[in-house]
Amino acid sequence: MRKKIAKFFLIGWLILSVVGAMSAQEKNATALQTARRNLMPVPANVNWKDGRLPVTKSFIVAVKGQTDERLKSYIFRVMRRMEGRTILEFTRELSSDAGGAQLLIETQSTGNAIPKLGDDESYNLEITERQAKISAPTTVGAMRGLETFLQLLDSDKDGFYFPAVSIADKPRFAWRGLMIDSARHFQPMEVLKRNLDAMAAVKLNVLHWHLTEDQGFRIQSKQFPELHQMGSDGLFYTQDEAREIIRYAADRGIRVMPEFDMPGHATAWLVSHPEIGSAPGPYKIERLPGIFDPTLDPTNEKTYQLLEVFFKEMSALFPDAYLHIGGDENEGKQWTANHKIQAFMKEKGIKDNHELQTYFNKRLLVFLQKNGKIMMGWDEIFQPDLPKDVVIHSWRGQKALAEAARQGFQGVLSNGYYIDLMFPAWQHYAVDPIPADSPLSADEQKRILGGEATMWSEWVSPETIDSRIWTRTAAIAERFWSPREVNQVDDMYRRLAIVNVQLEELGLTHRKNQLMLLRRLANNQDISALQTLVSIIEPVKEYRRYQQRPQNMLSPLTGLIDAAQADAPNARIFNRTIDEVLLDNSADNAQKVRLMLTEWRDAADKLALVTEKSAALTEAKPLVEDWRNLSAISLEAISYLEKSAAPPAEWRDAKLKTLEEIAKPKAALEFAVLSGVKMLIVAAVEMPNLKDVSPTERRERIRKIAFPSAAANK
Amino acid sequence: MRKKIAKFFLIGWLILSVVGAMSAQEKNATALQTARRNLMPVPANVNWKDGRLPVTKSFIVAVKGQTDERLKSYIFRVMRRMEGRTILEFTRELSSDAGGAQLLIETQSTGNAIPKLGDDESYNLEITERQAKISAPTTVGAMRGLETFLQLLDSDKDGFYFPAVSIADKPRFAWRGLMIDSARHFQPMEVLKRNLDAMAAVKLNVLHWHLTEDQGFRIQSKQFPELHQMGSDGLFYTQDEAREIIRYAADRGIRVMPEFDMPGHATAWLVSHPEIGSAPGPYKIERLPGIFDPTLDPTNEKTYQLLEVFFKEMSALFPDAYLHIGGDENEGKQWTANHKIQAFMKEKGIKDNHELQTYFNKRLLVFLQKNGKIMMGWDEIFQPDLPKDVVIHSWRGQKALAEAARQGFQGVLSNGYYIDLMFPAWQHYAVDPIPADSPLSADEQKRILGGEATMWSEWVSPETIDSRIWTRTAAIAERFWSPREVNQVDDMYRRLAIVNVQLEELGLTHRKNQLMLLRRLANNQDISALQTLVSIIEPVKEYRRYQQRPQNMLSPLTGLIDAAQADAPNARIFNRTIDEVLLDNSADNAQKVRLMLTEWRDAADKLALVTEKSAALTEAKPLVEDWRNLSAISLEAISYLEKSAAPPAEWRDAKLKTLEEIAKPKAALEFAVLSGVKMLIVAAVEMPNLKDVSPTERRERIRKIAFPSAAANK
Repeated sequence: MRKKIAKFFLIGWLILSVVGAMSAQEKNATALQTARRNLMPVPANVNWKDGRLPVTKSFIVAVKGQTDERLKSYIFRVMRRMEGRTILEFTRELSSDAGGAQLLIETQSTGNAIPKLGDDESYNLEITERQAKISAPTTVGAMRGLETFLQLLDSDKDGFYFPAVSIADKPRFAWRGLMIDSARHFQPMEVLKRNLDAMAAVKLNVLHWHLTEDQGFRIQSKQFPELHQMGSDGLFYTQDEAREIIRYAADRGIRVMPEFDMPGHATAWLVSHPEIGSAPGPYKIERLPGIFDPTLDPTNEKTYQLLEVFFKEMSALFPDAYLHIGGDENEGKQWTANHKIQAFMKEKGIKDNHELQTYFNKRLLVFLQKNGKIMMGWDEIFQPDLPKDVVIHSWRGQKALAEAARQGFQGVLSNGYYIDLMFPAWQHYAVDPIPADSPLSADEQKRILGGEATMWSEWVSPETIDSRIWTRTAAIAERFWSPREVNQVDDMYRRLAIVNVQLEELGLTHRKNQLMLLRRLANNQDISALQTLVSIIEPVKEYRRYQQRPQNMLSPLTGLIDAAQADAPNARIFNRTIDEVLLDNSADNAQKVRLMLTEWRDAADKLALVTEKSAALTEAKPLVEDWRNLSAISLEAISYLEKSAAPPAEWRDAKLKTLEEIAKPKAALEFAVLSGVKMLIVAAVEMPNLKDVSPTERRERIRKIAFPSAAANK
Repeated sequence: MRKKIAKFFLIGWLILSVVGAMSAQEKNATALQTARRNLMPVPANVNWKDGRLPVTKSFIVAVKGQTDERLKSYIFRVMRRMEGRTILEFTRELSSDAGGAQLLIETQSTGNAIPKLGDDESYNLEITERQAKISAPTTVGAMRGLETFLQLLDSDKDGFYFPAVSIADKPRFAWRGLMIDSARHFQPMEVLKRNLDAMAAVKLNVLHWHLTEDQGFRIQSKQFPELHQMGSDGLFYTQDEAREIIRYAADRGIRVMPEFDMPGHATAWLVSHPEIGSAPGPYKIERLPGIFDPTLDPTNEKTYQLLEVFFKEMSALFPDAYLHIGGDENEGKQWTANHKIQAFMKEKGIKDNHELQTYFNKRLLVFLQKNGKIMMGWDEIFQPDLPKDVVIHSWRGQKALAEAARQGFQGVLSNGYYIDLMFPAWQHYAVDPIPADSPLSADEQKRILGGEATMWSEWVSPETIDSRIWTRTAAIAERFWSPREVNQVDDMYRRLAIVNVQLEELGLTHRKNQLMLLRRLANNQDISALQTLVSIIEPVKEYRRYQQRPQNMLSPLTGLIDAAQADAPNARIFNRTIDEVLLDNSADNAQKVRLMLTEWRDAADKLALVTEKSAALTEAKPLVEDWRNLSAISLEAISYLEKSAAPPAEWRDAKLKTLEEIAKPKAALEFAVLSGVKMLIVAAVEMPNLKDVSPTERRERIRKIAFPSAAANK
């Protein structure tokens, strides 16, 4: 599910970019802000009340009902976070005085100590001026309620408080996952732990742990230690560490499902076991990104002998009922080229590679079932005669998912949630596992278990991975938890900015590592101009990074592209401001734009000097040149607008042509402000002629001239 | 050595503040920059040559001689850091082609796998246009050379390179330590590891690990598990973890010396073992900072029975030859109040508590010697008839240290290196373990082994500890390694700023956590005004934090004071700029000051609004009010200066009075720009009358009027 997705997603992106721009015009910003405050994901039912529960240092927590150690530890951690925000110190004792406590937590059962799919995660949260009360059927529900509670903490000049409210909440989907690919780039324990904390903060409940790949075999096998010893460069998780992660996740109400990707994506297996490959080998750990030929040999009994023992070992290690066998992107080249395999197929009447893979999957299924595991795999494993509890993990999209559901299979959606592709949050947010117009019946819909964001790790290091996952994944988490109708983009971004800060208290580095990387790049020079630049540029989308700026799995990920992030914050603000100018060409609005552009111009000039003295920024030079042009063009355009004097058409054509050049990525980075600048250029020419037209009509006309194909698509 | 130091240090501070201001006038900035480039600590001998060794992706490292795994791993890590800075990918193979490699490392011996005091750490580094060569007698010397090498990496528009140079380097002192107090605030493994990396980067070679205190017993004892179980709140290092730290340190050429502080500072021992206390107990883990009464009973044989077994256990765990028994700040109150102890003293002819402590130390000494350990302790253990290999650790100062040396004892200096006191780097930098005017003979001087920076942890959390240690400790590291003559403050600060960025590549959070803390404080508001504020304020010095803003060991360390740091960077710049104005009252210089002041004024106005909406900043309100006044006063002063019109004396008196009020810390924070502002006020009055005086004379006169007592002191 790696390369093929590109084209599909590209089309989606063009369409959505228009929808996104439209939804940016939401009128009810204030109403939503009042209704949703800082909550993310938005609960199923929220009823705001009058009044507030003040927080002082005598804040006491009481528990009632079935309270296990997990819950006590969770409460302990939540209270420490509350201390961090309030600088107040609270007692560490839990009270049993249900009436006197400021926070009362009542659970009816501890639920499963190791979470299971379908666990009851619901909770009620009632806050009055006297007390906050979380009631939940299980410990996990109470955890979810505690995160909501913490998001409600607010303050003003009168102090800290919780607003009075009545919340009845439960998730829309039972499967809300984040896949972390620990194989392409190994991720140390602390990376996993802090991301588990972040997942819990936004109510995600599945860590899908991608452990084997062409580029690495990352889990210790005691049965076949050569697998991790020869397949990992020494970078693997011991079984003790895996258990530590499982425990850590369980303590946060999160399941851990391992993935052992096969029969393709299997080079790292074959380094130590070439005999089970479909070609003779030898094999080396793969260093490049992409789809590779090495494939397990499904016709060799030795393959099954090894896998039977391996799956038994891993089934004992990972308690979750589900085990992901990958199954994606097997192009079968080694199979087609192998005479023995071809003979086997002929003998068994297997007519193509897909059928051969199904044969392989069915053999695996026996091993899994023997160990009490349910099989999960990517779209490719789908085959009508598999048992109906097999879960289809869809990278292909809602259509493929719906088809599986119609045939009685359960499914999980990841198409649309590929956070490694560097799309902005609103695009992921717009994808719904069961869209409003879904053709599925109610029963069929129940088979859509949920979704997973996928952090494929070709281009992430422990320094940058948090910035690739967060905060966009918080928007995806909301999609999985909240009602479908919670889909207002601006308000999502407003709340995302708040989550952004809150995640830092859990040790996440998504935000703070950006300036660190810029400092490293600047060779002891001032980074303010670089900061301005990264606030409006983004890494190229999809899989273009490798095409434009080839590196491999051992390369340093410390370039400007690694400092840049999806969803460039100031680009969004700039494009919005241009939008406002088109509605209201006032001197004030024009001045707002001019201020931004002046900052660009000055920073670009400054940065040109900085790049002269830091070789690590040499690749950014063309980008800086573009930026100077971009600033100059935009300043000219705003001057025309201010004067209400249309420039000649030649001016527009020349500038649009330059813009086309600027639109070509440099150093695999692109300006995220180009749509705004294009609108500005077109507006400079058109606005003077549109004086009699209503503001919205005017803006629409300019948009259509600037983006005729997008408009047509719509 | 905690509270008593305060007064001593205060006097030192007043004197030094003048010296500091004077040395700020160093003339030879450019010469030093050329001579020292980015090197810190400055090597013993450096000879710059013409030419440069370019760095391309085909950079190859070869090794020759005795190369152990430690060295190979060290080279591996250095090359990865070089990749991070250059965004180039280098081969991971070590070459044996000594002639063809760009970097050749030749070691004559691997040296001690676990470092020992006195290990040869010398190295030579020769860089020509063709090759860099590090030659060292031992692996550890090669490590030191590799850090120097990495500091030489530079770049410009022609690419990355190393300048040609010939360096012959070795440390001035053999004992160059950082003490980390893991007891008052427990510090997780990753904090220790990243700080060990940072220590190696600046050539420190001793981690003095303070493991037991009134506030916590942090090391697992298998012989007496109740010690850590009851004395640590569950926050302790297992023996496996201690071994992991020892190994991690050894791999970086760093010794690990444990400290078990006794007989005082021992509350945490007595929680589980009240029977060996000097009062009946019961005891609880101490939560407050300070000096407490609980003391081991030196007259009880049970005390020695336990300690004998304990020291045997710890001696086996910690391979270093030295073991620190603390011994400080035992005020003996429990001893004086205990009739049994008094009777014991009478019977044995022990005349006072100090003698009783010596009796205790001598009993400990037997246990240590039996396990092959050499005793180290704070000043208080000093007693002429102890064996001469006992090491005196001096918190009292150079005088006490010299006295011990004269009597034949070895000593290590920590007075002057108390980084928890929040003094600026230049003050620590000015303290020399053997000052130029030392009265000691050459042989006596040899007994001064070196020094240690001490990170007492009353007020540091894992989030803030790096910012308390670094980068000031890099200046101290230079004091311990480099020749005494390397003492130019401005150039030290220039290089400190470079180290500041380089340490981040090792995972240090000293820099990046500041904005994180400000974001948490701001309750989702813009932090730019807060940033401006923290760039000119500092936490109060010495032990005033607790007096002015009491907290305990369980309190959150997330206030504005925790975000603020010693050595406020913009305060230094501001004070320097005022200095320039006094020398040259040009419109340009005045304008520079005016720009800073305008930024203050605007930020202060903005911040006043921010504090209204964030209760975590309520304590900062008086500070913000002060800031507004400070800005207004300074702007008035600069206006007078610009006009060359002296204000009336009443104006000056009124403003100086206001300044006195502003000088009173608020929220345990103080402005670090007050000396500059005071000079400005005085200058406004005096400058017009000093037109005929030379610039330096003029500045000196103004300084004397502004700071009469400091001038007298000098």
